[in-house]
Amino acid sequence: MKFSLTLILLCSIAFAHSQSVQSPSKKINVVFALDDSGRPYYTADYNKKPVITRSYLGIKLKDMPALSSGFSVTRTSATSVNENWKPVLGEVAVINNHYNQLFVSLVQQTTGRQVNIIFRVFDEGVAFRYEFPVQKELNYFVITDELTEFSLTANHKAFWIPADFDSQEYVYNETPISEIDNDRLNLNNGIALKSIGGRYGVQSPLMMKTSDGLYLNIFEAAVINYPVMHLSKDPSANKFTAMLVPNALGDKAYLQAPAATPWRTVMVSDDARIIAASKMVLNLNEPSKIDDTSWIKPMKYVGVWWEMHVGRSTWDYAGSQNAQNQLSGQPIRSRHGATTENTKRYIDFAKEHGFDGVLVEGWNTGWEDWFGNWKEEVFDFVTPYPDFDIKEVSEYARRKGIKMIMHHETSGSVANYERRIDRAFNNMVTYGYPAVKTGYVGKIIPRGEYHDGQAMVNHFNYVPQRAAEYKIMVNSHESSRPTGVHRTWPNYIAAEAARGNEFNAWSSGNPPSHETILPFTRLLGGPMDYTPGIFEIKMNAYDAAKIEQVHTTLTKQLALYVTLYSPLQMAADLPENYEKHPEAFRFIKDVGLDWDDTKVLEAEPGDYITVARKEKGTARWFLGAITDENARQADISLSFLTPGKKYKAVIYRDGKSAHWKDNPMSYEIKTISVTSKTKLKLNLAPGGGAAISFFPED
Amino acid sequence: MKFSLTLILLCSIAFAHSQSVQSPSKKINVVFALDDSGRPYYTADYNKKPVITRSYLGIKLKDMPALSSGFSVTRTSATSVNENWKPVLGEVAVINNHYNQLFVSLVQQTTGRQVNIIFRVFDEGVAFRYEFPVQKELNYFVITDELTEFSLTANHKAFWIPADFDSQEYVYNETPISEIDNDRLNLNNGIALKSIGGRYGVQSPLMMKTSDGLYLNIFEAAVINYPVMHLSKDPSANKFTAMLVPNALGDKAYLQAPAATPWRTVMVSDDARIIAASKMVLNLNEPSKIDDTSWIKPMKYVGVWWEMHVGRSTWDYAGSQNAQNQLSGQPIRSRHGATTENTKRYIDFAKEHGFDGVLVEGWNTGWEDWFGNWKEEVFDFVTPYPDFDIKEVSEYARRKGIKMIMHHETSGSVANYERRIDRAFNNMVTYGYPAVKTGYVGKIIPRGEYHDGQAMVNHFNYVPQRAAEYKIMVNSHESSRPTGVHRTWPNYIAAEAARGNEFNAWSSGNPPSHETILPFTRLLGGPMDYTPGIFEIKMNAYDAAKIEQVHTTLTKQLALYVTLYSPLQMAADLPENYEKHPEAFRFIKDVGLDWDDTKVLEAEPGDYITVARKEKGTARWFLGAITDENARQADISLSFLTPGKKYKAVIYRDGKSAHWKDNPMSYEIKTISVTSKTKLKLNLAPGGGAAISFFPED
Repeated sequence: MKFSLTLILLCSIAFAHSQSVQSPSKKINVVFALDDSGRPYYTADYNKKPVITRSYLGIKLKDMPALSSGFSVTRTSATSVNENWKPVLGEVAVINNHYNQLFVSLVQQTTGRQVNIIFRVFDEGVAFRYEFPVQKELNYFVITDELTEFSLTANHKAFWIPADFDSQEYVYNETPISEIDNDRLNLNNGIALKSIGGRYGVQSPLMMKTSDGLYLNIFEAAVINYPVMHLSKDPSANKFTAMLVPNALGDKAYLQAPAATPWRTVMVSDDARIIAASKMVLNLNEPSKIDDTSWIKPMKYVGVWWEMHVGRSTWDYAGSQNAQNQLSGQPIRSRHGATTENTKRYIDFAKEHGFDGVLVEGWNTGWEDWFGNWKEEVFDFVTPYPDFDIKEVSEYARRKGIKMIMHHETSGSVANYERRIDRAFNNMVTYGYPAVKTGYVGKIIPRGEYHDGQAMVNHFNYVPQRAAEYKIMVNSHESSRPTGVHRTWPNYIAAEAARGNEFNAWSSGNPPSHETILPFTRLLGGPMDYTPGIFEIKMNAYDAAKIEQVHTTLTKQLALYVTLYSPLQMAADLPENYEKHPEAFRFIKDVGLDWDDTKVLEAEPGDYITVARKEKGTARWFLGAITDENARQADISLSFLTPGKKYKAVIYRDGKSAHWKDNPMSYEIKTISVTSKTKLKLNLAPGGGAAISFFPED
Repeated sequence: MKFSLTLILLCSIAFAHSQSVQSPSKKINVVFALDDSGRPYYTADYNKKPVITRSYLGIKLKDMPALSSGFSVTRTSATSVNENWKPVLGEVAVINNHYNQLFVSLVQQTTGRQVNIIFRVFDEGVAFRYEFPVQKELNYFVITDELTEFSLTANHKAFWIPADFDSQEYVYNETPISEIDNDRLNLNNGIALKSIGGRYGVQSPLMMKTSDGLYLNIFEAAVINYPVMHLSKDPSANKFTAMLVPNALGDKAYLQAPAATPWRTVMVSDDARIIAASKMVLNLNEPSKIDDTSWIKPMKYVGVWWEMHVGRSTWDYAGSQNAQNQLSGQPIRSRHGATTENTKRYIDFAKEHGFDGVLVEGWNTGWEDWFGNWKEEVFDFVTPYPDFDIKEVSEYARRKGIKMIMHHETSGSVANYERRIDRAFNNMVTYGYPAVKTGYVGKIIPRGEYHDGQAMVNHFNYVPQRAAEYKIMVNSHESSRPTGVHRTWPNYIAAEAARGNEFNAWSSGNPPSHETILPFTRLLGGPMDYTPGIFEIKMNAYDAAKIEQVHTTLTKQLALYVTLYSPLQMAADLPENYEKHPEAFRFIKDVGLDWDDTKVLEAEPGDYITVARKEKGTARWFLGAITDENARQADISLSFLTPGKKYKAVIYRDGKSAHWKDNPMSYEIKTISVTSKTKLKLNLAPGGGAAISFFPED
């Protein structure tokens, strides 16, 4: 799917000691150099102002000298690439991949070992990786630490979550770098399993803003056969160093040459919209390894799921989520959600409202005793509860034209899941399920592994790879966060891997700013199954004693379908709640999933974002605008619309007195006629949003 | 398959502090008691003489108080069992299970936690286990240590190998207990991966002999969902304590009540033959979980295997076992053993000589780069080398009526094997392979696990369980050693799990005493694929520079088919070596594999053993007699033969000047007529043996 390729060999110089490479626009300049001890380092400027100061590079090895000093340069080469490619599903029809590359071959004098460092400089940032070519002196090796540094110029504002080896489901903290301190966090946050890697560790993507208005982002791309990179802050400097997630032995990565680390990325721009719209991470991944992608489809779905989160039904058959139930064999009262009857109700609802799919959680045996016990054999992934007739359900769905989404909760017992994955996928094929939602709640088995270690990264990449053999799409929850690998395995259509909407149902929840930060962090790696669309904002609707609530207005829930990109989108609320608001529900039914074009119209991390997208293969546009806890007026030019064309714009906006806390369900819907010359003023309530559907009028 | 069952409730006493239980013969008396601190202990006498003095019992738990003191007895009960059952394959047609049981319920006063300790006293020894019943106070728990003691009365002679978490392939040391010291071992022994657990640790089964002629053996039975138990010597006493094999976190066992430990066994007899013939370990295992066992068959096989060990051919296609070959893609010279042509030669040979099966190692891709690299993805278990046409081979074998034995070397990467096991077994079904030899050479992946830890024990039990679904028999190499679990999964027909004949090909080898010790150690747990039958004793036959050799005479190699029980027996040498000795080869062709009866006629661990067995369903008997490095005259009464019946006895014996080192291939064959009244004098050379086939004459 390459449209054009420009590949120019610019030069090849031996034994250089300093070399630079610029972005195509020349705004970014990266210097690679060796210091007097042969230690490699790099710097990066943006518009001639330093953004990364001298930052050393290096790798520590087990039972071998570190690959960190004593290097000389044996060869360098520079190339440029400017090509276009088409994602299978995506935010735009065509992605441009345009960068200048500096390739540096190093040899360590004392060991004779070779390492290549490759820089790619894009207009919105720099990426680099270590490469270990085939060589006599380095075949199998174990990485015990990566010494990669990111030295910053000042105490920038940072949007950060603690470096946790098992979870990313945190609320973002917005503080100067100097105030990053995990010891000061309130950890009563609803996350059941936490493995925080030290006081000053944070996760990547790490979004920052400088006092002079530059946006910086440290992340990584193409994490394959390598652990996740978190970042360790030097408490005495504005500097971060790579913190790789260990295994039980403290080792980080087992490699065999030829091998390469993931790409380390530093995005930089004076325009936050450029960061949010960047395709750099995708460009750094390999093209699709699936030849026939015709079975990979976007999906809008409903499911037997939110009703468990709000306490109306249960995952387990016994109806109490109490592991002791199974011992007596006497469930007190069954409130099991995944019954044949209830599933048919959702299928009917999906059919009536034009959804593609239905997810059912709690359909299979094991939920009585699944949580928090580090138990290896919980689920077998094939045995339904007695009140879930999988054959009847799947035939009913097929007759109605609805696709069933299978649920495979592993409870973190990956050993068990991998043993059973062929049987589990075969079962899906038998009953015609084209997609699976996987879950990894709990401590990992094999015991001693973390969710973000090399072994689990490999597992999360393995599942879509195997699933592709069965033409199954994958939506992983509690996985390591995506780093663009869905370009390579496009059936990996979505992941959770951040704090999703569900936390609003039963914890302190997600503050109104949360969804304005995700496009600058989690979403840079790939689509998120955030499960928006909650209309019944306050949980006291289910139980008067509950104080939990969604921290947005209803209208903002609509806007999220546009602002949070995913080709898999859930309408997460209960059918009966949608039936109470059929006009607002209309937006969820209309909104696209796959796009020919995307415009980030406004963006400020932590404050607001406004996005417009053109639906794939149609002339429809959809717009979402959200704000944080502050009310906001968005002034939107509709210049993205096709000039000269008239559109009917259906505007879903917060009611005049709407407020995420005081009056979240107040909304207004207005239909007007617009063109590309129209300018709209949208008033967003505190914690509010606006959503617009643009239908061409002829 | 139970023939009779006597179950008598003898008594039920609350709050007893000391209680005894005797063997059916009353020779063994076991006392269970609590000391003043409520610490449980036991003692055992044999013919009123102490063999186990006060030995404490207890379990240490993670994050919970130890289950070791503060107990009171809440209930005891005594039962007797005397029943017969039929093994699917075995040494005898019917096994008698006869024991008296003492069941003790304990409660720990401070925690309210309950533990049951169950003693079963057989005529040849005592077994006990800990049981954790369902209870509120103990659901999920982690065992960090087992405190079980075995306090002995004196500094007995012991046959021991070091406690190694990854290997049992050691030569036995024969020393007083006081001289057990792993620091004094010569570890230049051909074992590639060693993980020795401390200076004074030894493995079980631990065979011992007292100065007054009692034989003692400490072992375990039914190791399921629990790590292997090694034994830690108290350097200041004649006492051993359980040493459980840890995982990467130092944890030993993850359990959920109801649960039980394996049985801890102490065999005791004044007759070594009773130990060697004991079925106590089998009796302590659960009956077969396979209903239809008709597909489980004994197998005598040849294979493309020894030729690699002697250096005539290679496992890898490139022909050098050099991992770097694959990089250049240019094998220098192919000496690959597993070619279609060579395999057909073995199939023809098997057909000509009446063997059941042919094993082929090195048939599949991966061997260029498999060894010692702790590499996760080595073998895929389905892709043949280009010179091995699996379809042609399997069709050729089927036409000849020969069963092919698949080889699955995992290189220790169990994660990879479990992921691929369904595809691997399906491939076997496709090509009609009814049996698999599995291998686990190398450090285990998941990294941090040992071959003998709970996770791997579970794996070794999992493979035959899954294989049974495909009607596949399993022969595991480098597994944890069997503990009678093949009663439960009778398709687990053999294992290696001790130092096999192969070590004679390329290491210091196995001393002449080795095979006289195995019946008192490794073989107590189950059949061993020792791969006897090497006729070309000295490796200089292949390469004049070689000094390695088999440490037996040729005749002793024949005798091993009888003395080392296995329903799976290899004729391990090359076809051309058998063709040079067609008369001696006759014994291997004739000897039975499955038995109606077995008589251990003589036995002294470390010195000699003589065994006679009656073939299942025929009137034929076979006898094997072996000695250690000392010449020996065996005086054998043939009273085991059916009285009044005449037999043609074909006697294979060492030549007059035979000697394992100086003249190993000297043998004589004599045919005589015998009856049950005949007495034979068999002269065994140093390192020699004798084998006899008894054919009824009418």
